Amino acid sequence: MSENGNGTARRGRPGYDQQGILAVAVAAFNEYGYDATSMGVLAERLGLSKSAIYHHFASKDEILDRALDQALSSLEGVFDEAGASAGTAADRLDHVLRGAVHVLVAELPSVTLLLRVRGNTDVERRALARRRAFDKRVTELVSAAQAEGTLRSDIDVRVVERLLFGMINSIVEWYRPGGREDAARLADDVIAVALDGLRVPAAARS
Amino acid sequence: MSENGNGTARRGRPGYDQQGILAVAVAAFNEYGYDATSMGVLAERLGLSKSAIYHHFASKDEILDRALDQALSSLEGVFDEAGASAGTAADRLDHVLRGAVHVLVAELPSVTLLLRVRGNTDVERRALARRRAFDKRVTELVSAAQAEGTLRSDIDVRVVERLLFGMINSIVEWYRPGGREDAARLADDVIAVALDGLRVPAAARS
Repeated sequence: MSENGNGTARRGRPGYDQQGILAVAVAAFNEYGYDATSMGVLAERLGLSKSAIYHHFASKDEILDRALDQALSSLEGVFDEAGASAGTAADRLDHVLRGAVHVLVAELPSVTLLLRVRGNTDVERRALARRRAFDKRVTELVSAAQAEGTLRSDIDVRVVERLLFGMINSIVEWYRPGGREDAARLADDVIAVALDGLRVPAAARS
Repeated sequence: MSENGNGTARRGRPGYDQQGILAVAVAAFNEYGYDATSMGVLAERLGLSKSAIYHHFASKDEILDRALDQALSSLEGVFDEAGASAGTAADRLDHVLRGAVHVLVAELPSVTLLLRVRGNTDVERRALARRRAFDKRVTELVSAAQAEGTLRSDIDVRVVERLLFGMINSIVEWYRPGGREDAARLADDVIAVALDGLRVPAAARS
């Protein structure tokens, strides 16, 4: 695939570096399901021998682990951005929700894979634990915003978190890169629905 | 199961009427997947012979068809309720969104099944077509509300419809009957997030 994989990632095999194999594997997992995608199927899709894949990854499980880590690290990274610790808790939540939409659009395949994980293996259970930890940080932010009076406080914070990410995560079901909405526009739309509300207050109607 | 199945539905077999078989089948489809659930597995779960099931349903496909029809008829029925044609378009949308939450809670198993349909068979494709027709009616309601000025009009109506139902449909992932939130409360929460927004306007803060 790309010519500029870094030196450690590509270990001598021409054609695919680790990242390239990962991308093809994630697409196959999303299309056929993880269980139904054997290393043999992957090798065929890549036009490589199985041993060429094993040169990069010890097992199919390791490929899944790397793909899920990529999605989770990007999501967790949103909390490290400056906007996630600036302003009111509502401002910080606004930033985190927008950031999550950007990650989803930028890493649609690996986030799609993450959202389908059901906890059948150790790798999947570790990924679910990290996802729950992320959700918990969002829930804490909702709590802080309710406490400071910037978000309405008559809804259970866990229900709020679930509805917000239910909406955001559903984007993987229909979003296709290159469509009419880019990530920034989509993030604006999510904020408009979730934080500001669609309804025009009667007083503001013309 | 129940003693009061109607006379046409139960055709002489004791223990399960059609509705009872349907409920067990839908639970199995949701747990193992439709393809992985054979009539043999169903028979075992029901403690019936396969021929006893065939007494009620011509095929596994017919069971799926009936289950999906149940979910879809309930959703479509929301549009026939008085509230769906009273007031502004925003009021009518409010009613339809609340109604969809009620259907989801009341018929969690069959709606869960519906949301997993991918269009692999004729039965699934017909169900998807009905779901798209439902979505289209919601989109038209959003359009009408934007046109009358009761909903903000700076977001594409199809994106609005997808975000709203992305949020509502995600409830099947975590909602469990008997939890802290009943259907009416959950419907209030969805309306609070989707139509009124979580953010407290600066002017309204204490």
